[in-house]
Amino acid sequence: MLYPSKLIEDAVNEISKLPGIGKKTALRLALHLLKQEESTTDKLSTALVNLRKESKYCKICHIISDSEDCTCESARKDASILCVVEDTPDVIAIQNTAQFSGYFHVLGGIISPMEGIGPGELNIQSLLDRVKKSSGLIKEVILALSPTMEGDTTSFYIAKKLKPFSIKITTIARGIPIGGELEYTDEITLGRSIVQRLIYDTGND
Amino acid sequence: MLYPSKLIEDAVNEISKLPGIGKKTALRLALHLLKQEESTTDKLSTALVNLRKESKYCKICHIISDSEDCTCESARKDASILCVVEDTPDVIAIQNTAQFSGYFHVLGGIISPMEGIGPGELNIQSLLDRVKKSSGLIKEVILALSPTMEGDTTSFYIAKKLKPFSIKITTIARGIPIGGELEYTDEITLGRSIVQRLIYDTGND
Repeated sequence: MLYPSKLIEDAVNEISKLPGIGKKTALRLALHLLKQEESTTDKLSTALVNLRKESKYCKICHIISDSEDCTCESARKDASILCVVEDTPDVIAIQNTAQFSGYFHVLGGIISPMEGIGPGELNIQSLLDRVKKSSGLIKEVILALSPTMEGDTTSFYIAKKLKPFSIKITTIARGIPIGGELEYTDEITLGRSIVQRLIYDTGND
Repeated sequence: MLYPSKLIEDAVNEISKLPGIGKKTALRLALHLLKQEESTTDKLSTALVNLRKESKYCKICHIISDSEDCTCESARKDASILCVVEDTPDVIAIQNTAQFSGYFHVLGGIISPMEGIGPGELNIQSLLDRVKKSSGLIKEVILALSPTMEGDTTSFYIAKKLKPFSIKITTIARGIPIGGELEYTDEITLGRSIVQRLIYDTGND
């Protein structure tokens, strides 16, 4: 593409390095910024630089945090349940449900031989250390990984490693999403949801 | 949404101010930058700040440029044709066709009473001045605006203003896009393309 100015070309090249953003979208974003106050661009660029430079990862749970000691083990939380997730967006997603009050443990990825990610690249050893160090305080580990080939492999690997601690190992429920149409659900999900059916709760009457 | 850190929250807020980018995409982009080298973020933020701070608009054609004297009137170009467009992306799009070697004139928008943009907000007077000052050098003005209600209104307004100069006023062809299916073309486009049919070129034989 021919750009009318070197400044635009540079900006488009840098913006289009972001995932899912092509040259056309990058140009649209660059022209948008040109039409805004200078402070808009300044704030954006400062926020990005600060994010990259100053973000820390908690030494315990590996969540991204403003400091190396995050609030992951605050007293308000339920110390007996540990939820293992792939990455930070999953922590945010689960927190937003307001249905979980335990601790998190971020793996920083999932086992993927295709991408050359083995158990050693993930925060699995630190998970085992954490469970060990809790000396019985952690009673349950929830494996909250995506129900994909890689997610299932990782869950299986971790579950095996956790077996010696004889704690409760659970996984998030798989089934038909709320609001989903039974007719259009894939066979595997539907099949599983029948095999792993739940007792219907008729309430207290 | 609850974010694990203030730095992420700030970055997500700033990124999601960009058009077409919501909080979820913003979070994805922020987390992507966190996983890249620090230089990636630095280059991106520098390019954006430089773009906004140092971009100039050419005093003649109003294209965004690195300096106030852009190369819009370079000797290589055909000085007799002036192509009027809405904004910079249109210049880039037309340049990329490699089918136009004349000059450009960027309006900086189109007449839109809904958004309170009248002829006074656009670079229309400078277009008339430019045509006048050329003293006959500019022989044709192509109105290359989108075939929308606003685009057509703007074209009509400019054409009326240019009438006294008795130069050729043209507009880009409207018709069925190359590769388009006749069957699925809207009635208005198809109707126009029949009314404004072209002589079939059988080549020189």
